[in-house]
Amino acid sequence: MTTYSAPLRDISFVLHELLDIGQFSHIAPFKAATPTVVEAILKAAARLCEQVLLPINRSGDEEGCRLENGVVRTPSGFREAYQTFAEGGWTSLACDPAFGGQGLPEVVNLAVAEMACSSNLAFYTYPALSHAAYNLIGTHGSDEVKRAFLPRLVDGRWSATMCLTEPHCGTDLGLIRTKAQPESEVGYKLSGTKIFVTGGDHDLTENIVHLVLARLPQAPPGTTGLSLFLVPKYLVNSNGSLGPRNGVSCGSIEKKMGINASATCVMNFDGATGYLIGKKGRGLHCMLSMMDIARLTVGLQGLGLAETAYQRARAYARERLQGRAITGAQCPDRQADPIIVHADVRRMLLTMKAYNEGARALAYWVALHVDLSRQHPDPEARQEAEDLVQLMTPVVKSFFTDYGFEATNLGLQIFGGHGYIREHGMEQLVRDARVGQLYEGTNGIQALDLVRRKIVKKSGRLLRRFFDPIDRFINEQKNYSRMREFTLPLAQAFAKLQQVTAWVVEQGAKDPQQAAAAASDYLRLFALVALGSTWAKIAKVSYAALDNAGEKRFYEGKIITARFYMRRLLPQTSSLVRAIRSGSRPIMELDAEAF
Amino acid sequence: MTTYSAPLRDISFVLHELLDIGQFSHIAPFKAATPTVVEAILKAAARLCEQVLLPINRSGDEEGCRLENGVVRTPSGFREAYQTFAEGGWTSLACDPAFGGQGLPEVVNLAVAEMACSSNLAFYTYPALSHAAYNLIGTHGSDEVKRAFLPRLVDGRWSATMCLTEPHCGTDLGLIRTKAQPESEVGYKLSGTKIFVTGGDHDLTENIVHLVLARLPQAPPGTTGLSLFLVPKYLVNSNGSLGPRNGVSCGSIEKKMGINASATCVMNFDGATGYLIGKKGRGLHCMLSMMDIARLTVGLQGLGLAETAYQRARAYARERLQGRAITGAQCPDRQADPIIVHADVRRMLLTMKAYNEGARALAYWVALHVDLSRQHPDPEARQEAEDLVQLMTPVVKSFFTDYGFEATNLGLQIFGGHGYIREHGMEQLVRDARVGQLYEGTNGIQALDLVRRKIVKKSGRLLRRFFDPIDRFINEQKNYSRMREFTLPLAQAFAKLQQVTAWVVEQGAKDPQQAAAAASDYLRLFALVALGSTWAKIAKVSYAALDNAGEKRFYEGKIITARFYMRRLLPQTSSLVRAIRSGSRPIMELDAEAF
Repeated sequence: MTTYSAPLRDISFVLHELLDIGQFSHIAPFKAATPTVVEAILKAAARLCEQVLLPINRSGDEEGCRLENGVVRTPSGFREAYQTFAEGGWTSLACDPAFGGQGLPEVVNLAVAEMACSSNLAFYTYPALSHAAYNLIGTHGSDEVKRAFLPRLVDGRWSATMCLTEPHCGTDLGLIRTKAQPESEVGYKLSGTKIFVTGGDHDLTENIVHLVLARLPQAPPGTTGLSLFLVPKYLVNSNGSLGPRNGVSCGSIEKKMGINASATCVMNFDGATGYLIGKKGRGLHCMLSMMDIARLTVGLQGLGLAETAYQRARAYARERLQGRAITGAQCPDRQADPIIVHADVRRMLLTMKAYNEGARALAYWVALHVDLSRQHPDPEARQEAEDLVQLMTPVVKSFFTDYGFEATNLGLQIFGGHGYIREHGMEQLVRDARVGQLYEGTNGIQALDLVRRKIVKKSGRLLRRFFDPIDRFINEQKNYSRMREFTLPLAQAFAKLQQVTAWVVEQGAKDPQQAAAAASDYLRLFALVALGSTWAKIAKVSYAALDNAGEKRFYEGKIITARFYMRRLLPQTSSLVRAIRSGSRPIMELDAEAF
Repeated sequence: MTTYSAPLRDISFVLHELLDIGQFSHIAPFKAATPTVVEAILKAAARLCEQVLLPINRSGDEEGCRLENGVVRTPSGFREAYQTFAEGGWTSLACDPAFGGQGLPEVVNLAVAEMACSSNLAFYTYPALSHAAYNLIGTHGSDEVKRAFLPRLVDGRWSATMCLTEPHCGTDLGLIRTKAQPESEVGYKLSGTKIFVTGGDHDLTENIVHLVLARLPQAPPGTTGLSLFLVPKYLVNSNGSLGPRNGVSCGSIEKKMGINASATCVMNFDGATGYLIGKKGRGLHCMLSMMDIARLTVGLQGLGLAETAYQRARAYARERLQGRAITGAQCPDRQADPIIVHADVRRMLLTMKAYNEGARALAYWVALHVDLSRQHPDPEARQEAEDLVQLMTPVVKSFFTDYGFEATNLGLQIFGGHGYIREHGMEQLVRDARVGQLYEGTNGIQALDLVRRKIVKKSGRLLRRFFDPIDRFINEQKNYSRMREFTLPLAQAFAKLQQVTAWVVEQGAKDPQQAAAAASDYLRLFALVALGSTWAKIAKVSYAALDNAGEKRFYEGKIITARFYMRRLLPQTSSLVRAIRSGSRPIMELDAEAF
């Protein structure tokens, strides 16, 4: 029941047929990413995920991490798996060759991330943060810091963390108290306590690089007083070898609902040596550039877990014999029919399938724009791509983790009572999926980010990057009769989204509470339309391939799933529109004491 | 953070102001249930739940049950708590005085059940099943069996189980293989294995009474070949004392996602002595009468857990200081505002509050009809009440456990990352809530039961018991201007439900797949309208009480919550209607192999 088989055909469909990444072969990271190279990489990644990461997923959950004499021990097999992972070059895929990376696109790296999350989410939290830190240091670090730290993050011998929140802060990082005292020309001494530090300590790598938000003396209160520091677990000698232990240690690890093999640490900084990253007072700004890629990866986690839940539920639904089809026995020679004959089981499976395949296409499309925003030769194209990434990041993070939790629960439901039993592994997927809605900024915060920072404040510039292509697509396709069953519902939902957007912007300008009250429902509406446009494109590409391909059934499956999405899932938009338009009064009028 | 304070004011509002149970004082169980008596009972129950059951809820989850040398040990404190529970008379509340019961209404018992589920769901699974078995034996048992077993189930010295499914069966009880061999005039020997037996063994009571579905020799295959047997753990001597151990034993206990303190057992029957209950071949029919009350109680579990989640999230939202209100600081003298100022936190809290208070009123209304169906002097009134209970039982079971899972997750979400940490207790509520959607028939099965057995097959008779009062209420109230904001959305949603019902009945008659494909969404639509009509009634009663009561704020809170329900939650109906009307094709057309 712990089967997972990497969906290579679906991934290649998205990369090559839908996004056609070959069209960017003139842009740096895509030059090397020929279809043959990409296929070989993805096959090797699939083998690693299925054969190395998956087998230690359930044991890792049962065993969890232990804090022993100040040292965190990961579960059995994790050290060996990490070594295989790093030695295979999986930490360096989308990194700059200048630091030992393979210089491949982020979109390919994200496909690998999806498989890793499907196989063993807890394991993947360690390298995922290292890659996010690699991006941050690459953007904001001094040349000296880059030279000292990036090669080891790239080859995976060291890992990294983000040290943001503190016991009294939660989301409100303006309340951070950790202090940084200037010590020498380059160095600072950090003191304070950080909580919820993923991979704050562990036994997988030789060194751990902490990226820490702290306050310099005389820094103003609030987030503008925060600066960013790099604090290594072991100090690094000028020749690159490890020096003495730095003043940072793990105080305790949390007992959690899930991702038990991922150590969530309380980290104590006691005069730990740190190096400033970026400018003073720009700590949060620098950190956000790390959080953006981390937020995309968290979104991917929802998809990854939902894909595994789907595959297991599908296998179970085909094998489990119970009851008869409502229209009469389908397998009269057996004691009962497999439960996949039942409409409600199919409804649940199709919901998972439609979300997963649509989400994959949408996420890879955003990841492709991460590459374009960094590497496109035309600055205008870079800006456009960056705008799109900015707009879509909270949507991917929030909607994907929300539906990931829904979908893993549907998978559990298909197992009936057996889904509740630990040995089947379905309930672990649910517990592991739950954290995605919380970390890297709760989903409510993502929704506010979308509505206030990305839409209201940018007065539509970001939005156009997303709306204009949908508009063009609908206009292009509306006269093809076989596309009408997709373009019509999409056009209706899109029109609603445009109207509601105008309403939110207008109302939000008068009363910010209106935008805040709408935020979560608006994000979901936005995501449903985004998936709708994705499914319409999938249908178009599949119709084109239907006649000249030997894979008729594959493409037919896409078209049928697109239809299911339009008829059964996209209609959620109607309710969301009505809820949003009811405004903030029903939410705000109850006195806090009257709850 | 493990606070729970029984919502006695809300419970009394439902019992006395909304349902006015005093009007039934001429009917047996209500004679004794004067307001003073009921208040005293509920206060005592609240004390027990808050002081005895709640303190062992988290420790019970961490410790779980153990199987030692064939004996199940419940977690520390459970034996003592059970003794207090039984000695306090809490097992006998709604039982017949002829067997030592207190003869009080089921609706009062259900209010106690709600509090017990809020405090310690795992604990309550043991007495809940005993009470369901009491009802079954009372209805279908011979006088001899009743005399031998009911007094001990009533005083709580013995407990009971339901032994239905087997490893290969799941929902399909027609596949049951457990055999019953006639042995003497009254006795049978049972052999087979049952799984998922809640409380199959434990150390709380002196004896355990198993109600077992099994097949007599030459019984036909399928469910019509099933008979029901009572199999005690210890045989009972004619003087009522315990005899030798019977041939039934616990083979293993399951490791589960939640309700860890509730022993889920594999039970082996090796020639165990059993007594026939009801007629041969009518086993499932008899069992269903036990399952009906059990299904209502499972629904209550969703409400109970959601109420606790709400109370904790509310306390947290008032205490936790983070960020500033979007319209400017509310507590400028503190470092930040409490998070209850944020619209998204309020949205989540109000969603929980609106579901909980609406669900409580709806469930107690159904429970009141359980009493009327048994005790009303007029047979026609009994039948009407029974019809309503039959119709509403799958709705309460399924919708309450669905929203209970949603609501406990909203509560966790309000805690942010802290909600994911075990010590705060929020994630236990989520894990405990998840089982309700699975046991006593998965929620998909409940939906089929509603659509096919209760609506399509009964050609509207049951439905009228529910539709007619809503119709009358809307007509009565529509001219009161202050009620219009409730009656208008209710009337719209109700009209949609009526149209969709007609569509499902008509389509389902032509093609049963249409009814099956609609079932889950239809049940949710039905439940949302039922809650809508409940909230409209609450608004009416609250408006009437607003002017002449010293509790203006309480009633205003009800009216504001009713408004929130109408504006923010009831609109879900639009999407459900569209999804249902898209029919079965998008669900059925994909080939099983193409998933």
